[in-house]
Amino acid sequence: MRNRSWTDEATELLRVGEGFRLSDVDAGSHPGYGGDKESGEKDLAEGTEALGELQERLFAIGRVGDARDSVLLILQAMDTAGKGGIVRHVVGGVDPQGVELAAFKAPTDEERAHDFLWRVEKRLPQPGFIGVFDRSHYEDVLIGKVRALAPADEIERRYDAINEFEARVVASGTRIVKVMLHISPEEQKDRLMERLERPDKHWKYNPGDVDERMLWPQYMAAYQAVFDRTSTAHAPWYVVPADSKWYARLAVQELLLAALEDIDPQWPAADYDVEAEKKRLAAS
Amino acid sequence: MRNRSWTDEATELLRVGEGFRLSDVDAGSHPGYGGDKESGEKDLAEGTEALGELQERLFAIGRVGDARDSVLLILQAMDTAGKGGIVRHVVGGVDPQGVELAAFKAPTDEERAHDFLWRVEKRLPQPGFIGVFDRSHYEDVLIGKVRALAPADEIERRYDAINEFEARVVASGTRIVKVMLHISPEEQKDRLMERLERPDKHWKYNPGDVDERMLWPQYMAAYQAVFDRTSTAHAPWYVVPADSKWYARLAVQELLLAALEDIDPQWPAADYDVEAEKKRLAAS
Repeated sequence: MRNRSWTDEATELLRVGEGFRLSDVDAGSHPGYGGDKESGEKDLAEGTEALGELQERLFAIGRVGDARDSVLLILQAMDTAGKGGIVRHVVGGVDPQGVELAAFKAPTDEERAHDFLWRVEKRLPQPGFIGVFDRSHYEDVLIGKVRALAPADEIERRYDAINEFEARVVASGTRIVKVMLHISPEEQKDRLMERLERPDKHWKYNPGDVDERMLWPQYMAAYQAVFDRTSTAHAPWYVVPADSKWYARLAVQELLLAALEDIDPQWPAADYDVEAEKKRLAAS
Repeated sequence: MRNRSWTDEATELLRVGEGFRLSDVDAGSHPGYGGDKESGEKDLAEGTEALGELQERLFAIGRVGDARDSVLLILQAMDTAGKGGIVRHVVGGVDPQGVELAAFKAPTDEERAHDFLWRVEKRLPQPGFIGVFDRSHYEDVLIGKVRALAPADEIERRYDAINEFEARVVASGTRIVKVMLHISPEEQKDRLMERLERPDKHWKYNPGDVDERMLWPQYMAAYQAVFDRTSTAHAPWYVVPADSKWYARLAVQELLLAALEDIDPQWPAADYDVEAEKKRLAAS
């Protein structure tokens, strides 16, 4: 519990464990957080300070010495759930020099010619960095399954391939934080309608958004399958209720803070003679 | 003049034109700005709002329609001059989803096997993005010249190659903003000493920094040659006095704002039938 408005550990409450049912999650709830929007925004600003320092320490150990630690935040969600807001208001609060952001769109012909993990491997964060995937290899078992973009046995194969891939990534020093932002279909309708009502938001709307929306139950089933098959001990899923944007941002910030605190990066010691360098500098 | 503390256009005052002499620039001065540190920080926050909106508009036109516009900020400086602070406090104020950051280190063997512009070409910003180069192809005519990493005639060739390259990049829709952050050697000594005095800054110090520092006059001559040869009408250089960090940040923000205002990106019109989509969404 990092500050007083959290009554419980977000990492515990939001983690997808045995017997998890997505349909039991209330997208409008604020698990573990006793405060309101106002205290949430204050706590977010405080958390940004803490995240900023931890990120700088992580960056420092990645530059000096041979630490291999990094963090990878994977964001998945239905349209309008707020992935962009997480990137902007949570990740955007730390030094951009320590962040590697990858937004995965529909694969190109070249990407499609390779295994689905090929393009993902190339965007893994370097040591010392916080990587963020805005969509990810999970699209290949979400839209891939709902739209039958691959045969059923290939979708099956992918769950195991993902688990093996993530196990290797974790073993190489990366903390993986997998987040599904969970909104209700009613909230999505409001957010899409707002895009249609505001000319400065028209560019964010795509008629295909409504086509996907019509498949809501199929998408929820595909997410449930993802949780059943890929919420592992080394890379668990977290489902974050996201009808309240402020709560979702605060909760993802908590998950990132926990991952960084688990690494607990310390300022690296100088690998040169500090006193000798002071003299050399003074004489220069 | 975007706000009242600017008495003159930064784009005019800081631009490297005919007869420019780097040695005439006072690194501690605040050209065109009548305010102090306090007003500078307030103006920076205000400018961040404006920059954020322009950046989002730029991003929007890059997503929809066929605008090719982008902005490329090139940062060059002696060590400790504050490139990182510009990235963090100026660029870091806008949505990271619209920024592509490239930090160029000493070239790898693979990069060295290609022409010096090969690795740079690959990192040019996509349409709709603000690209930032933390160091750049100019290293190849700065440290490249000072340390004689390439024969003199190759250095000569590079100035022209850079001008041709940048002309092509500009013609393809990219505004190039080239900034040298100019600090005094005395200020650098203070900043390096601070790194040596604070254990949490030791990782930022490298004994090689003093070696480069010893070559200050040679570097200034190499910068002067860069300005003489590559400050072109399509991609002029700006020299920003940087002993006051707050001034340097404010000035670079002004230069970015001017580049974006020159593009003047407008929210794209919907390429779908807004009223029909409202009905379809309402029924979904």
